[in-house]
Amino acid sequence: MPSDIEIARAATLKPIAEVAAKVGIPEDALQNYGKHIAKIDHGFIKSLGDKPNGKLVLVTAISPTPAGEGKTTTTVGLGDALNRIGKKAVICIREPSLGPCFGMKGGAAGGGKAQVVPMEQINLHFTGDFHAITSAHSLAAALIDNHVYWANELNIDVRRIHWRRVVDMNDRALRAINQSLGGVANGFPREDGFDITVASEVMAVFCLAKDLADLEERLGKIVIADTRDRKPVTLKDVKATGAMTVLLKDALQPNIVQTLEGNPALIHGGPFANIAHGCNSVIATQTGLKLGDYVVTEAGFGADLGAEKFIDIKCRQTGLIPSAVVIVATIRALKMHGGVNKKELAGENIEALEKGFANLARHVTNMRSFGLPVVVGVNHFFQDTDAEHAKLKELCREKLDVEAITCKHWADGGAGAEELANAVVKLAEGEQKPLNFVYELEAKLSDKVKAIATKLYGASGVNIESKAATKLAGFEKDGYGNLPVCMAKTQYSFSTDPALIGAPSDHVIAVRDVRLSAGAGFVVVICGEIMTMPGLPKVPAADTIRLDEKGQIDGLF
Amino acid sequence: MPSDIEIARAATLKPIAEVAAKVGIPEDALQNYGKHIAKIDHGFIKSLGDKPNGKLVLVTAISPTPAGEGKTTTTVGLGDALNRIGKKAVICIREPSLGPCFGMKGGAAGGGKAQVVPMEQINLHFTGDFHAITSAHSLAAALIDNHVYWANELNIDVRRIHWRRVVDMNDRALRAINQSLGGVANGFPREDGFDITVASEVMAVFCLAKDLADLEERLGKIVIADTRDRKPVTLKDVKATGAMTVLLKDALQPNIVQTLEGNPALIHGGPFANIAHGCNSVIATQTGLKLGDYVVTEAGFGADLGAEKFIDIKCRQTGLIPSAVVIVATIRALKMHGGVNKKELAGENIEALEKGFANLARHVTNMRSFGLPVVVGVNHFFQDTDAEHAKLKELCREKLDVEAITCKHWADGGAGAEELANAVVKLAEGEQKPLNFVYELEAKLSDKVKAIATKLYGASGVNIESKAATKLAGFEKDGYGNLPVCMAKTQYSFSTDPALIGAPSDHVIAVRDVRLSAGAGFVVVICGEIMTMPGLPKVPAADTIRLDEKGQIDGLF
Repeated sequence: MPSDIEIARAATLKPIAEVAAKVGIPEDALQNYGKHIAKIDHGFIKSLGDKPNGKLVLVTAISPTPAGEGKTTTTVGLGDALNRIGKKAVICIREPSLGPCFGMKGGAAGGGKAQVVPMEQINLHFTGDFHAITSAHSLAAALIDNHVYWANELNIDVRRIHWRRVVDMNDRALRAINQSLGGVANGFPREDGFDITVASEVMAVFCLAKDLADLEERLGKIVIADTRDRKPVTLKDVKATGAMTVLLKDALQPNIVQTLEGNPALIHGGPFANIAHGCNSVIATQTGLKLGDYVVTEAGFGADLGAEKFIDIKCRQTGLIPSAVVIVATIRALKMHGGVNKKELAGENIEALEKGFANLARHVTNMRSFGLPVVVGVNHFFQDTDAEHAKLKELCREKLDVEAITCKHWADGGAGAEELANAVVKLAEGEQKPLNFVYELEAKLSDKVKAIATKLYGASGVNIESKAATKLAGFEKDGYGNLPVCMAKTQYSFSTDPALIGAPSDHVIAVRDVRLSAGAGFVVVICGEIMTMPGLPKVPAADTIRLDEKGQIDGLF
Repeated sequence: MPSDIEIARAATLKPIAEVAAKVGIPEDALQNYGKHIAKIDHGFIKSLGDKPNGKLVLVTAISPTPAGEGKTTTTVGLGDALNRIGKKAVICIREPSLGPCFGMKGGAAGGGKAQVVPMEQINLHFTGDFHAITSAHSLAAALIDNHVYWANELNIDVRRIHWRRVVDMNDRALRAINQSLGGVANGFPREDGFDITVASEVMAVFCLAKDLADLEERLGKIVIADTRDRKPVTLKDVKATGAMTVLLKDALQPNIVQTLEGNPALIHGGPFANIAHGCNSVIATQTGLKLGDYVVTEAGFGADLGAEKFIDIKCRQTGLIPSAVVIVATIRALKMHGGVNKKELAGENIEALEKGFANLARHVTNMRSFGLPVVVGVNHFFQDTDAEHAKLKELCREKLDVEAITCKHWADGGAGAEELANAVVKLAEGEQKPLNFVYELEAKLSDKVKAIATKLYGASGVNIESKAATKLAGFEKDGYGNLPVCMAKTQYSFSTDPALIGAPSDHVIAVRDVRLSAGAGFVVVICGEIMTMPGLPKVPAADTIRLDEKGQIDGLF
């Protein structure tokens, strides 16, 4: 069986202008980055303003397990399948982060015959968007310390600078630093630290901005410090937003590439799915909707996190409403939710499947509670048995009245997901209802957390630790009480304990800390330990990554 | 009078494929970055292997003053002029650094009618080369600390890690840090600091490598730390070089843009001119020589630093020999070397010019001592008087037997530098002699410094401080004694005192520190304070940089 990278390298790619032309993008609206990648011009996007929108399909998943679910693979396969059945479909997904590539082996561009290409460039520097975001973030950091250094006219309290630094690399040594050491010329010593670029609020803002003007305005709202008398200081106060917007100008144009079947995929932005909302840029999604009959997009992690934020944050801010939701599951992952460990997945196990089904069931119920039509996409693995697939379909039909469709896009490309595509079209052509958000913006911040925890997570309640409660009160006092909340908790469980797989009930969501992302427009609610700067493993992938004799990249995938 | 940016924006740019075709680059050898920037494919460059080389013209200058000399402007103007007189000429210059753009106003792409375009992209992210270098450098940093974290099998002494970190931003707060704080999971606390990206040894290696294999080999030689028993540890030892080469693969392809007159310019790499050798990549220069009859290139700072390193380091490593050297001077700058301060430059001052001529004279003599034919290019400013220009020509002819040619490329483009172009062709068509290096590689490291100081700087001797002397002895013991030296001293004076303008004699060069750049292949000799991480000024340019209503960048230039 060929590997993902072998399949990708064997593909004959079309010139990107040909792919773009399929959805009506003229060649002069493209800024090429090599022959198979382009950015779509701001001016052209503006010119699409009055066109009616296509239909939006959200791909989400059960709670992730080490068995793998294949959400991106399904997104790509479904997009190809929709094109095969005569719909003009555009795929919108996140850009992968560079740093983690050097830790664990693996990229993030789908798999098998459901991939976006050219995968090596997509997984490495791509069009430099993350570099631009790192630069803009770093400029803001330099301007803040420079302000303090010269006269500190804003009276910034160096003990209360919230703006950390970022680098797109897994580097635990930078998590906590003391900086401005070495004497008078280097500034006022203070504590600081680095996160990985995808955790930057610039990334979240980038992905929620509707255009350059909105980007600059949102950047200006970011609270970067408190004054000595505890007033919030913003990026606008330190005059950073104009230059940051200049640095982000080209990056904000969505990137277009192609699937292995030559269909257009917009890959743009990639915010963390825990401390941010975890989906591709609003600009890419909205551009896709103007260009295609259908846009297939995905949200990060499981539906409890990614899809909830997609709806309560991204859809609420933009007015977008999905016409259908696909929840991706695998037999293997459901068996793990049923208590089987990864080494024992081989062989049929209907009992474990039935037990693990509870995880899928809760995600289906949750998605329906938003008022959205749902279909389950069962991503087929060759080790699965027919009886297992039949059982899952039966469970879905009988217990949930939802259709479950086995998909073989990994092995067969778009042809393997045609049945799913037909089901999606049927759902999407039904009547569209307004969204039921989990909470209203007028509610207290703590009540928003409680609503998510009790309605979606199966929790009996929420325990907000005193430090977090004080900060929430402060945010409300400072006028940020009407923001939505962005939950940062483990993706492996509905609870805050990654070991509680399946569909745990009556657990309590402990809120350890909260953070304000005033530019992105949400309050981050941190439950448990959230890592914003990963480390490298003992034997990092970087050790064996190299160019082979042909100049091809070896060891990256 | 229109500004540089107004002139650049008013220009009608040719498609880059058309510019590239002028020197025989086929369209399929280009990787486009938008419509006016491309990278030239590694494969195409390899295919040029057997073609004969064109002639190399080195543009250097008198010691810089606040009056400005216009070295890049002259390089561009001369390139255009050579094309006008029927020579196929290619320009090779350095890429500008992003960070400093936000400090002091101004870009680095020539000026007036002698510019390379598109100047905004060139001055901002361009093709992401510096981002790739930053990434590769950061990956190495992460791998080093990761090695120490897990088991430290190489027995790295955390007090003796020489590999600092880099960011492409002016940020004084990062000059000196303590890192790996915050507990066991974050590693072993140690001192560290950040330089600006152009100061990275990766940048120097990038600019001296002849191809990807050479790049990887040179990276492997970089000494990043000592062991507890004082043995050097290299990047190869921490298995960083394969992945770093992968990150640098696309970046190592030279970038092609155009002058305002539509002639090809290769802009590639940009190492510091103090702690590194300060000129564009060897790959760009060698590619240009295969493509053009002439390559016009420049070296950093004045001829005492940039040209000396160009010859003793770059030419020695590659076998390149310039066919002619242009020393750029201005009447204004020479008057400053004659003791006039910047505010008093207006008005004719023959006496100051005669006095300041000493600076030019020494540079001319120095360049000739390498066995190179020299012409002086006098970059015309509209405030200059005819009498001043006539006097300078007379001084050059009578005292040095060298031709001085007034150039008006800033006002008139290539047409303003045709006389210089004709003079350069005459020199370049003369007999080519082998280079006289200032020192032989077999000499002791301290004797190499002494040779440069006494033969070129007019110094009476060298004073190597004890710490530096100990390190030099260590380098010789470790087998690095045969490397050339790379002088890091003020660019404003032949001496180490920036206030000693003109042509000071009998001063002593004090060597404060030395550093090994084993991958680049030189020993850096630090005389005086050398800043490898600039700070931002009190009112940084960033404060007023923004997008205007038309989406154009305001305040950057």
